[in-house]
Amino acid sequence: MKQAISFITLGVRDLERSRRFYRDLGWRESSGSQAAVAFFQAGSVAFALFSRDALAEDAGVSAVGSGFPGFTLAHNVASEAAVDTTLAEAVAAGGRRVRVGERAPWGGFRGYFADPDGYLWEVCFNPFFPLDADGFVHLPE
Amino acid sequence: MKQAISFITLGVRDLERSRRFYRDLGWRESSGSQAAVAFFQAGSVAFALFSRDALAEDAGVSAVGSGFPGFTLAHNVASEAAVDTTLAEAVAAGGRRVRVGERAPWGGFRGYFADPDGYLWEVCFNPFFPLDADGFVHLPE
Repeated sequence: MKQAISFITLGVRDLERSRRFYRDLGWRESSGSQAAVAFFQAGSVAFALFSRDALAEDAGVSAVGSGFPGFTLAHNVASEAAVDTTLAEAVAAGGRRVRVGERAPWGGFRGYFADPDGYLWEVCFNPFFPLDADGFVHLPE
Repeated sequence: MKQAISFITLGVRDLERSRRFYRDLGWRESSGSQAAVAFFQAGSVAFALFSRDALAEDAGVSAVGSGFPGFTLAHNVASEAAVDTTLAEAVAAGGRRVRVGERAPWGGFRGYFADPDGYLWEVCFNPFFPLDADGFVHLPE
């Protein structure tokens, strides 16, 4: 299997609420979006919002689940100050600040916000991993 | 906030089991990996495996959670046949086949496997979204 992730899909409880949140964060939906699914290109990966029940049904699993979903997304930025401003943007768009920007034990600086379904986004300044002009990380080979 | 996802981090219960699974799937770890965290570059996004408890602690939330995690990752391939062969590769690496390759209502063809923690991967042939040579989707603007 190629080392590729084509889509990340979040199963959401209120699609309109979620698409509004990500739009208010400044993201632009693809024209390929439909009433039942919102698509956003985020670098080489496509980010999708889809009904939580429909997502579970597509996989053929129960939609029942609660608590920590077990994963995080991260948005890396170029400075400590940008962590704070990005967290403020997320709160202005209706997100919930989960952890204020603070130094991490490994030497970076990060905070967290939650989207309308509680999915966690880390906003991180990592001095060890360079970002390209589009804000993407390039790990050492 | 830029339309960028820098990292996807899965919180796993047994890091060695998970890194072995993804390696057996054919993925190659970054030399930036450490004992406590495994990194894999997957296009513009970095994929990370980290202890589930440590991930929750980093976010400052409870690690308690169960059932459907509410998200899926997708690996798109270029044909229906490649869906089946990729699912077989995942099973050979120790994954669990959750849904065999089947036609989806929207006209694609997809199946699902679960990684060692039950995180769901869709393997999908989508005739409507072209793939580039590296297997990445480019949504219409």
